[in-house]
Amino acid sequence: MTAATALYASRMWPPVRRGVGEATDSTLDLLYHLGLVARTAATGVHTLLPLGLRVHDRMSAIARSAFEERGALAFAAPTLQSRRLWEQTGRWRTYQREGALLTLRSSSGEEMCLAPTSEEIAAATVREYLSSFRDLPVRLFLSTSKFRDELSPRGGLMRGREFTMADAYTFDTSADGMRESVDFLNNACTAALTGMGLSGVFQAPADGGAISAGPSTEHLVLSNAGQSTIVACDHCGNRGDGAVTPARPSPPPGAPVVNVIGFVLTHPDGHIQPAAVAVRSDLKVSARKVVAATGALKVALLEPQDLPAILGKEAGTLTPWDAAANPDALLLFDDSVADLDEFAISDGADGLRSGVTWDGDQHLRALSPHGRDLAEASDGSRCTLCPGTHRAVRAVEVAHVFELGTQYSQPMKLAFTDPTGRQAVPWMACSGIGITRCMQTAAALHRDHHGLRWKPDTGPADVHLTVLRADQPQMQERTDRLVQDLTARGLSLFVDDRPLPAGEKLRYARLLGLPHAAVLSPERPAEEIEVISRWTGRTAVTESSHIPQLASSG
Amino acid sequence: MTAATALYASRMWPPVRRGVGEATDSTLDLLYHLGLVARTAATGVHTLLPLGLRVHDRMSAIARSAFEERGALAFAAPTLQSRRLWEQTGRWRTYQREGALLTLRSSSGEEMCLAPTSEEIAAATVREYLSSFRDLPVRLFLSTSKFRDELSPRGGLMRGREFTMADAYTFDTSADGMRESVDFLNNACTAALTGMGLSGVFQAPADGGAISAGPSTEHLVLSNAGQSTIVACDHCGNRGDGAVTPARPSPPPGAPVVNVIGFVLTHPDGHIQPAAVAVRSDLKVSARKVVAATGALKVALLEPQDLPAILGKEAGTLTPWDAAANPDALLLFDDSVADLDEFAISDGADGLRSGVTWDGDQHLRALSPHGRDLAEASDGSRCTLCPGTHRAVRAVEVAHVFELGTQYSQPMKLAFTDPTGRQAVPWMACSGIGITRCMQTAAALHRDHHGLRWKPDTGPADVHLTVLRADQPQMQERTDRLVQDLTARGLSLFVDDRPLPAGEKLRYARLLGLPHAAVLSPERPAEEIEVISRWTGRTAVTESSHIPQLASSG
Repeated sequence: MTAATALYASRMWPPVRRGVGEATDSTLDLLYHLGLVARTAATGVHTLLPLGLRVHDRMSAIARSAFEERGALAFAAPTLQSRRLWEQTGRWRTYQREGALLTLRSSSGEEMCLAPTSEEIAAATVREYLSSFRDLPVRLFLSTSKFRDELSPRGGLMRGREFTMADAYTFDTSADGMRESVDFLNNACTAALTGMGLSGVFQAPADGGAISAGPSTEHLVLSNAGQSTIVACDHCGNRGDGAVTPARPSPPPGAPVVNVIGFVLTHPDGHIQPAAVAVRSDLKVSARKVVAATGALKVALLEPQDLPAILGKEAGTLTPWDAAANPDALLLFDDSVADLDEFAISDGADGLRSGVTWDGDQHLRALSPHGRDLAEASDGSRCTLCPGTHRAVRAVEVAHVFELGTQYSQPMKLAFTDPTGRQAVPWMACSGIGITRCMQTAAALHRDHHGLRWKPDTGPADVHLTVLRADQPQMQERTDRLVQDLTARGLSLFVDDRPLPAGEKLRYARLLGLPHAAVLSPERPAEEIEVISRWTGRTAVTESSHIPQLASSG
Repeated sequence: MTAATALYASRMWPPVRRGVGEATDSTLDLLYHLGLVARTAATGVHTLLPLGLRVHDRMSAIARSAFEERGALAFAAPTLQSRRLWEQTGRWRTYQREGALLTLRSSSGEEMCLAPTSEEIAAATVREYLSSFRDLPVRLFLSTSKFRDELSPRGGLMRGREFTMADAYTFDTSADGMRESVDFLNNACTAALTGMGLSGVFQAPADGGAISAGPSTEHLVLSNAGQSTIVACDHCGNRGDGAVTPARPSPPPGAPVVNVIGFVLTHPDGHIQPAAVAVRSDLKVSARKVVAATGALKVALLEPQDLPAILGKEAGTLTPWDAAANPDALLLFDDSVADLDEFAISDGADGLRSGVTWDGDQHLRALSPHGRDLAEASDGSRCTLCPGTHRAVRAVEVAHVFELGTQYSQPMKLAFTDPTGRQAVPWMACSGIGITRCMQTAAALHRDHHGLRWKPDTGPADVHLTVLRADQPQMQERTDRLVQDLTARGLSLFVDDRPLPAGEKLRYARLLGLPHAAVLSPERPAEEIEVISRWTGRTAVTESSHIPQLASSG
């Protein structure tokens, strides 16, 4: 078995230009200038150039191995997915409302979307072959292009309209089985991300968004290039999505104002109930925390046009007293308002009315607020685990694991016969790793002031073979022999065979950042070679036959 | 380096069901029943199941190696392509007119298509980095999903709306360079197809269709499952697309009728000229042969509504004498009509008028037809190389190589500085190999009455390890050791560890058709194993350490 075909700088495309790509470039500019990826005429859509494709394919293979070695089976769901499938879960409408779905119609009138994720098609395919509890668990993996109609794609590969997502879907007989599968998914994601060379990845509870109404776990890397904002305690270091991280309120900024936000709760028995949450005006109510506090299955914002009929006033003018007037509505108080001695409330068109207390005054009867943690943790809120304070920090979401329960399998009518002969619905979970996003994240995480720096097995190649006096026939022969030998032994090579000064070629090797540079020089005996580690900067003179060991030692 | 993770029948998905899949099934049904591919809710769109994905990925890797080893560089162009790009070559309109383009609009109003092929984006990407003749030739390879709005997708993987195409694009400084690249593409395609186990592939001149106005070469396999009809001489065996294969006309079927077909020629100097081709009514004019005969750059059918104004009559009623009345029109005669002594012509609404001759009669002046080969070769036409007769046969187009010239590079404004300092336009060529189509074609080509049969390196795995008494702990240990050893030595395995009778498991091994089955039996010493070749049916008892040699010997 041999490694990938060696690449030669002299025959590279895009051509390796002298002086293009500076160590001071941003990481994304380095990826552009060094010819790993290129923008296209379509906004937020990139081409993977030869060097970038090799990084992409290796990272995708690392993710696949991490899942396959743990027992998942890899398959490939298509890009084109029928609207009929997405109607079965109601997500055609919710994704379209979010504006995230790219849809099209064939000339025969068939409506389809471009897969943004694969819950529906994975469930539909499993449904075809599911009969008995003996067929479960099923754990599937796929690494394919996904599509999102991003309004403002940005950050290069960080958030595009077309990107590679390595996702996995599990199907179990029970909730306990699903939880085992969630552990499996978290472990496989961790192994995949570690294999891709991402260090400092941490897990944090998160908001399942359009994928899941249940609990979910993000795998994150702290980075200013990140598109996610999370909170981190400045004392104990506890981190997480503000929507789910427990918190005590930050001190009020000046005179506090109490607002009310209207929601609709769907209870497990199907009962639908309006709810009003009183919260300090500088904070945001977390729908996830309302779900946790009420035991509701689902929480949605009340549509603005429904507010007057249900809670008595329009958005922005609603007070706790208005909401309390509807005996059917559930009135909840966030911790940020329950203990306030005095505050302001909205007074309709006239603006704020200050000096209000919960004990009531001539116009308002007394309310007895019972405070709960319902607001999103944010910069300045207090940690519940220690005396620390939350700080908002930027992070990259590199993977996300979701408990799906029967949210998809129920409406899609998946069923199996359990050991007692009864029909039952499988429990699902899923995960997603952003492969293209991980490429750029790994590059940003490890680069230094000399350029890029790739962890073993993740770069465009393993060894940067710098050939000095590459124009001499005997050096060409030595290069050919060495390339043949090292390739046969499983190493992938980038060979710089350009007729340029050694210094310039070594600078380029540092810029491209393969884990090792090997320098083949006419001034050394044929069997000797100088190997420079991009990570330690250390140089070793060794026999060329030892390069594979050196390279695999990282 | 290790091979792909072993697959186990007991943990397979879709589950390996007893009795599902019969040796008498059609090849496509075998692929469905054995769980290689599955239909989806979207017409003409398939899911690759785990066994099928492995075939797909191996065939795609074989194609990539064939091109990379010959010096091409692999990159990945995206699925989403901007309309602006396709407007540069005018193909947005031509593809849409054919109804072959799947298009969509983002919520921000950007129009895009799903790549049916990649000439535009390959040229646009090369344009970004092209400056001097020293940057050429560029030879690029990619293997990605492609999309066609097929009105009636059929034949499983043979013709779908979404499929994998391994395409390649070359850019040269001159026509001679392009011809070298065409040789390169034909050689790489041949190597790829051979590597995929396709035997009996032959090349034939073809019609470039929507891709190219220039010459093209199809790589074909004779097969009744094929969607292409070609002609083959029953004497010398010469084969090709009827549109370009030289032919003499078949004998007339009864009394001959002469029809006239109207065309519009675009000459190299930009001059546009109407043309009328007289042809026997049972034959079809080949636009390609008209191009060759006239030296025109482009030939298109005259729109029916333009016929009366330009050639004097409506379609179906037009005679050579009508066409001869327009001095600007070029009147051409196919061989099938030039030598006719007497024939019928259309007589407007009254039907046919028989007994007409070229010498004219009371109503018609004399015409002196000069016959040319302008009709498509078809079943019954005569070979020009020997006294044989053409027969229409069905074939699968597995690859296609196109000379593109400057058809794309000119309108897309690609330019380089030539050695004399002048600006010049690069010459392009391209090729495409239908990977998913090749999967089904290879399966159909090699299957026998026991089931599928895969050539080495192309099946779902290399060795089908049939474990007898797999329930015994000591057999499980032997299996684990053997799997670990063979995987480390680069073999991929399918392990049948189900507690079923030997006969049933061997029948399943034949049905799935991996090149070798290895039978691990408690009745043999631990180091001994029986290896059965699916191709020769021969059985050898060998030491398990010899399996890799046996497997690689095919």
